[in-house]
Amino acid sequence: MQPRSHFEALDAADPLAGLRQQFSLPPGVIYLDGNSLGVLPTRTAARIAGVVSHEWGEGLIRSWNSAGWIDLAARIGDKIATLIGAGPGEVVAADSTSVNLFKVLAAALRIARENDAQRTEIVSELGNFPTDLYIAQGLADLTGGAVTLKMVEREDILKTLSPRTAVLMLTHVNYKTGAMWDMPAVTQAAHDAGALMLWDLAHSAGAVPVDLRAAGADFAVGCGYKYLNGGPGAPAFVWAHAQHVERFWQPLSGWLGHAAPFAFTPDYQPATGIARYVCGTPPVLSMAALECGVDTVLAAEPLGGLAALRAKSMTLTDAFVAQVEARCAGMGLTLASPRDATLRGSQICFAHANAYEVMQALIARGVIGDFRAPDILRFGFTPLYTQHADVFDAVEHLHAVLSTGEWRDARYAKRNAVT
Amino acid sequence: MQPRSHFEALDAADPLAGLRQQFSLPPGVIYLDGNSLGVLPTRTAARIAGVVSHEWGEGLIRSWNSAGWIDLAARIGDKIATLIGAGPGEVVAADSTSVNLFKVLAAALRIARENDAQRTEIVSELGNFPTDLYIAQGLADLTGGAVTLKMVEREDILKTLSPRTAVLMLTHVNYKTGAMWDMPAVTQAAHDAGALMLWDLAHSAGAVPVDLRAAGADFAVGCGYKYLNGGPGAPAFVWAHAQHVERFWQPLSGWLGHAAPFAFTPDYQPATGIARYVCGTPPVLSMAALECGVDTVLAAEPLGGLAALRAKSMTLTDAFVAQVEARCAGMGLTLASPRDATLRGSQICFAHANAYEVMQALIARGVIGDFRAPDILRFGFTPLYTQHADVFDAVEHLHAVLSTGEWRDARYAKRNAVT
Repeated sequence: MQPRSHFEALDAADPLAGLRQQFSLPPGVIYLDGNSLGVLPTRTAARIAGVVSHEWGEGLIRSWNSAGWIDLAARIGDKIATLIGAGPGEVVAADSTSVNLFKVLAAALRIARENDAQRTEIVSELGNFPTDLYIAQGLADLTGGAVTLKMVEREDILKTLSPRTAVLMLTHVNYKTGAMWDMPAVTQAAHDAGALMLWDLAHSAGAVPVDLRAAGADFAVGCGYKYLNGGPGAPAFVWAHAQHVERFWQPLSGWLGHAAPFAFTPDYQPATGIARYVCGTPPVLSMAALECGVDTVLAAEPLGGLAALRAKSMTLTDAFVAQVEARCAGMGLTLASPRDATLRGSQICFAHANAYEVMQALIARGVIGDFRAPDILRFGFTPLYTQHADVFDAVEHLHAVLSTGEWRDARYAKRNAVT
Repeated sequence: MQPRSHFEALDAADPLAGLRQQFSLPPGVIYLDGNSLGVLPTRTAARIAGVVSHEWGEGLIRSWNSAGWIDLAARIGDKIATLIGAGPGEVVAADSTSVNLFKVLAAALRIARENDAQRTEIVSELGNFPTDLYIAQGLADLTGGAVTLKMVEREDILKTLSPRTAVLMLTHVNYKTGAMWDMPAVTQAAHDAGALMLWDLAHSAGAVPVDLRAAGADFAVGCGYKYLNGGPGAPAFVWAHAQHVERFWQPLSGWLGHAAPFAFTPDYQPATGIARYVCGTPPVLSMAALECGVDTVLAAEPLGGLAALRAKSMTLTDAFVAQVEARCAGMGLTLASPRDATLRGSQICFAHANAYEVMQALIARGVIGDFRAPDILRFGFTPLYTQHADVFDAVEHLHAVLSTGEWRDARYAKRNAVT
């Protein structure tokens, strides 16, 4: 157990501490939920006001060209590409993670089946974030059973790969526990089994170093509103390896993915490269906010970028585990994330029999994390804005909630929560 | 040909004239492109600033509940429902028109094929807005040819319906000419042929009275950023008739369409009703702007609603045709929209051999319409904010551009335009 002065000293010595100035953190809040919704960047309000009043209000339709709206998908995609080991022109920002997953899953299945008609199975983890599983089920259902989804426990994933596996679809960092797959090793295992590898980077992009090309991955999607700080429901992103991207269309072949959208020809001809993964007209306000969010991560580049952010994240999460286990010993908390920082993302989870009520009591105190059914307290650490002192303060609140039985208050009784 | 005083008198007598005060129209602009991108409502800037700074910045993740973000899809959907003859709980705002079209087209095809395995054909119009055709092609491609798209000329649509037709997919008001289908009659013809009827209301919602239920339609989608004034790339909407909506899933079965999204169970169970047509997390900033836009249309309700807006629209468009044909006679313009106002939406198109350059010259003068390949000048009239005097002024500019040859200026040479 460390005193607050220990954490204050870490903050004073933190070369990334200044990055926090990029954010509008509300007073009285210790925000440990950037893996659900990243904090508002200070630059965003002015940018959005400008998009609304100047670009839309004055520029009107002309702003598609004059304000570069038409380029947003590619421009933001190129920025995100630098954070995930993709090249320029390989990523677009578009739609939701779920919709993008449908695109790449359909593409991956088609490639796999064309290469080998026996490969009709999507393999994923039962504990994957549900939308990934639901989208795979929707696609399987649409094929009338020609494609199937096989969901197995995490520890059985690699042994489940078989000559029937078309694509292995995994989320790099598990949303509930923070456990992180070894991307190069798992990708290699998928390839060794003759399957394609599709990564969901929802809890990775902007939080941990990712190198999709070095890992040899085939497809990836990810989320704009978590560690990329793009705002509530920010558009997502999608990547396809250069060897796959132009092999054929993805099925959500909307007009802005056409080679010549303004020719208005009746036959679809896909754009070159990842541009064909754009579907309809993008929500410009939300896209602009996403760009502001991505820029907050890019601002760490001169300070060491994701490697430096990752180092700080590991310090923060290690410190949180140690402080909780010391300060709250015997209070019913069990670490539910990997103890080894290299095996997890930027979050820490503890199980507790009354996790829901405990989290509600914490939130009432301004310590904002998440509850995840059935018994998980989830705390996200965004190294761009989370301070070491936050670790100390959050644990003090947790101790108070548990030691006083504050969580038993009727105000904290169970109802649905939202990520 | 009428003098400006004639139009000024019409404005003075217009009971809807006050609705224009809802909008931030830039000075020096005559905006006849609300069918591409509706004008900024004055209320939107403050609403979005509040969503950004207060709801996101201060409320953070809590705003999903406390600010009602989780209800936006249904709440905005209910508002739109009143404009298109749908009931409460029958419409959601979500995704793009293209993505929503994929959902309902997949659903319609499945119903049709389950009823009759021979019905595997989507019938649509060659001149439909291309994204509708492209999405149908993407879906057909995904099925490996089990489903096909048959595109025919407008005049051949009804005679093309056959025992192979699964679904007739049409855009109610044609994006290029403004020609409007007789929704009840065409829907009946589709049903008489045993097909389902899917309407794209992109150029209808908020512009012309639509009564989906009275027409007996099966599915509909529509756009948020045209006559609904929801802002650039605003989310779209989707409707399914109550008899179809729960028959099975739509294939983009994302987590927010689940019956219990926060239970995080691995198996998809669709929500009741149209809520299952929600897929991923909605872009909240753009959703909030959409709601502000829809509210500008609802503000016409006490003044007669869409019937009154439609009457004004017909007056405006009839006046524009008459004024152009009188003032610009012999200048190479040919009406490309139906002359009968009851057969068209809220736009007027003229063909001109140098339409591109003419439109560029008009835009340079602040008269903003659209060029549509190969030779169409498109002018949209949004009765919420377009004045009768705008008709006079726009025609004066058009006359000046044509009579002086101003459009021949090199500045107006051809490049791509954007809708």
